[in-house]
Amino acid sequence: MSGKTVSLDDAIAYVARVLEANRTSGPNARRVAEALVLAEADGLKGHGLSRLDSYAAQAASGKVDGFAVPSVDRRASAALAVDGANGFAYPAIDLAIDGLAGLAPVTGVAAAGIRRSHHCGAAGHHVERLAQKGLVALLFANTPEAIAPWGGSKAVFGTNPIAFATPVAGELPMVVDLSLSKVARGNIMKAKQEGQPIPEGWALGPDGAPTTDAETALKGTMVAMGDAKGAALALVVEILSAGLTGANFATEATSFFDAEGAPPGTGQLILAFDPRAFGGDGFAARMAALAELIEAQDGTRLPGRRRIANREKARQEGLVLPAAMLEKFGPV
Amino acid sequence: MSGKTVSLDDAIAYVARVLEANRTSGPNARRVAEALVLAEADGLKGHGLSRLDSYAAQAASGKVDGFAVPSVDRRASAALAVDGANGFAYPAIDLAIDGLAGLAPVTGVAAAGIRRSHHCGAAGHHVERLAQKGLVALLFANTPEAIAPWGGSKAVFGTNPIAFATPVAGELPMVVDLSLSKVARGNIMKAKQEGQPIPEGWALGPDGAPTTDAETALKGTMVAMGDAKGAALALVVEILSAGLTGANFATEATSFFDAEGAPPGTGQLILAFDPRAFGGDGFAARMAALAELIEAQDGTRLPGRRRIANREKARQEGLVLPAAMLEKFGPV
Repeated sequence: MSGKTVSLDDAIAYVARVLEANRTSGPNARRVAEALVLAEADGLKGHGLSRLDSYAAQAASGKVDGFAVPSVDRRASAALAVDGANGFAYPAIDLAIDGLAGLAPVTGVAAAGIRRSHHCGAAGHHVERLAQKGLVALLFANTPEAIAPWGGSKAVFGTNPIAFATPVAGELPMVVDLSLSKVARGNIMKAKQEGQPIPEGWALGPDGAPTTDAETALKGTMVAMGDAKGAALALVVEILSAGLTGANFATEATSFFDAEGAPPGTGQLILAFDPRAFGGDGFAARMAALAELIEAQDGTRLPGRRRIANREKARQEGLVLPAAMLEKFGPV
Repeated sequence: MSGKTVSLDDAIAYVARVLEANRTSGPNARRVAEALVLAEADGLKGHGLSRLDSYAAQAASGKVDGFAVPSVDRRASAALAVDGANGFAYPAIDLAIDGLAGLAPVTGVAAAGIRRSHHCGAAGHHVERLAQKGLVALLFANTPEAIAPWGGSKAVFGTNPIAFATPVAGELPMVVDLSLSKVARGNIMKAKQEGQPIPEGWALGPDGAPTTDAETALKGTMVAMGDAKGAALALVVEILSAGLTGANFATEATSFFDAEGAPPGTGQLILAFDPRAFGGDGFAARMAALAELIEAQDGTRLPGRRRIANREKARQEGLVLPAAMLEKFGPV
């Protein structure tokens, strides 16, 4: 059995039902289901349906509070402090985005810091929503420890994604979404399963020396994209997403995967800018001109465009719910 | 003759005098002189005294308006739109920093977009000043074209620096300052002068193919740090620093070095965050704890610390004004 193909709506309903059966409120289950299914539709499998098993286990064990209701506190006129209340990240991010969408047109720039949060999934989706409202948006998030300070051997920073989106006149938003490790840890886990070596430069062993052995790499640290510069950026993202927000640092955060221990308590910082408050008119048209300069070159691609193509295909053809999932959580 | 060693104050007075003799107002000359001498003292020679020749020539030709008076417009409560008026960048950046230092404690986050600007020099110095006031700060700047979109062959983005600073309890601020090219273009110019090849991965030829020939590289584009991910970040910085601010894109900007043509008109975006508005108390103490996690590891270094050591040494021992400079612009 190779799984079952269903519509996106049916996939969302299925995932929500699984989460509701695992100590999660109806509204939270629905919101998390939408996020996982959209990531899967976009082809971002690491943030998609593959997470359901561990999300459900974490809600069932209470590591994630499936009934959490996030709250927001406006401590300064352009700043929102959001408490994720150790629930899933998505409802807290919604609160941040709704708040920022209201504030930024008045304040020009606004920021929301989210603490007691969790895995933020496909970070590009969150900023994309602000771009759809005509705002330029940035997101910084931290994750459990993965990357060492440059020259060191112990992880202090997460893989710490940065996401960015901007409106583009007459087009879909441009969306950049990248993590600061050279490659995703999943690539190393896959190499280990297959008994293959990994390329030099991906990871360091526990002694801080470069390694091509997948097992040694998994005990060590991930190399930052751009080496020393990327490790410095990982520090910057750690400070913005966890220091500023009052969230747990990478070194304090428990795993996003297993159901053991305290909640991860990681953080996100989201910024929204209203272009009218800075450079004046014509911003979206200039973005279209910039996009054209990129697209006019052979071999290039606007960031985020492959996701959109995947999403469109998934809307038309549906998604596969894997056999193992149906076996574990029951039929659609 | 190998130059003359003078105190930092005497170096500033000398540089200011040279600029005043080249169609620059007294206050602007003084401010630019301070910036160049501080960069030189910090060991950042690419942003230090080596720039005086080209700065003076640009002021003399009128490409930079040495008499420019920047202005600021507060179009939204947390947003400043600064017009650099095609002068040197530093007076415009001062206006932005003074404004942000006043706003951020009220608004929680504030941003200043600077247009019609110029080379911003040692970007870390600007954010460091905000950190000295207890604020967390970010700076994004664009520069004339250098980096192609990933997969392409024509430069669309500058080397686009990112700078960041944070207060640290009981310590000097942590300062990150990096440009998004893998290496500085100066390294390639040096290799060309010495008739040496460059390592693969630094640059692409005009056809978009990797090259180890310095001359071919100088006709082509610089590779971004972190390859595809770094090129995506260069796009993000281009949009924040030039798109949002209404400044010239990299493709529209003239050289920061020669005295020909229209003003570069590049841009900077500076953000200031008041930590009290987000995660609550104890921010600076947590930064000290994070710094300790980094410093406790052999082989690591807190970002910005080497500059501070250089600066201290220069304060005590003075700086060398190069012989060629004294020959061209007269004795101290």
